[in-house]
Amino acid sequence: MPDEVENAKQTEEAEELDEIKALEKERDELLDTVQRVQAEFDNYRKRAARDQQSLVTRAHERLVKELLPVLDDLERALEAAEAHEEAKLEEGVALVTRALGEVLRKEGLEEISVDGKFDPHVHEALLSQPSEAEEGSVIEVIQKGYRLGDRVIRPARVVISSGRD
Amino acid sequence: MPDEVENAKQTEEAEELDEIKALEKERDELLDTVQRVQAEFDNYRKRAARDQQSLVTRAHERLVKELLPVLDDLERALEAAEAHEEAKLEEGVALVTRALGEVLRKEGLEEISVDGKFDPHVHEALLSQPSEAEEGSVIEVIQKGYRLGDRVIRPARVVISSGRD
Repeated sequence: MPDEVENAKQTEEAEELDEIKALEKERDELLDTVQRVQAEFDNYRKRAARDQQSLVTRAHERLVKELLPVLDDLERALEAAEAHEEAKLEEGVALVTRALGEVLRKEGLEEISVDGKFDPHVHEALLSQPSEAEEGSVIEVIQKGYRLGDRVIRPARVVISSGRD
Repeated sequence: MPDEVENAKQTEEAEELDEIKALEKERDELLDTVQRVQAEFDNYRKRAARDQQSLVTRAHERLVKELLPVLDDLERALEAAEAHEEAKLEEGVALVTRALGEVLRKEGLEEISVDGKFDPHVHEALLSQPSEAEEGSVIEVIQKGYRLGDRVIRPARVVISSGRD
């Protein structure tokens, strides 16, 4: 075999060995990356489960805490009722109603308005009665409806007009 | 060069080429794995953020929904008060108090018991007064205390005895 051929073969071999080394390095680095990302993922998953639980617990705790004064005032009103202190009882009930309404409004609760026109998305017709009002329009609210954020959590229960008899 | 040496060289070269191919395959598979795990992780992160928000929203919604009948009954009691229907008002307040207590108990709310012994973990002394009772013992509860699950969300506010004068 001529020398130049032998030399070329040796160069080729050296290049192949370099390539093997480079590929091994690349593989080892990728293995490290896979293990690292997998471990991060696992930790994230565990933390997310814990966070979720404590998030719900804390959100609940805050709301329940805000309701304690309402419960206190109700118990006080009840004591006034038992002692037949009517003025105090009335005042207490007005106070409690405002306070509970305030707590719930702060949570995003909104009363559904009823302006005569029946809206099946937010109203529920329980009865229809003959009336001077336009047929199908709302003539009475039996139970107030409420929205929480953008969701209707209770439709307004209403009576609608069946028109003139 | 003798044939057997030439043969051995060729075998070695073929082995090196096989090794390069195998390493390339391994690298490509690892690259795929890294990308897949990374994508899964990203999706999980996005979903977890969405889930967390909707979890809190749903937990809140449930509790707020349970409070609507309490608000209804309070408003009804208020109407009775305005109409001076005292018996109906009293009955209404008793009903509401029980209903709100029930909702909160279902959420895990528990009244902190006071049995005379002062416990700084769950009681807060607001005043001390001379009394026949043992010095440092609780003689009166000014405001009830509550636990939610295993957390004290409000200590019981109490008066303690400063002993005989």
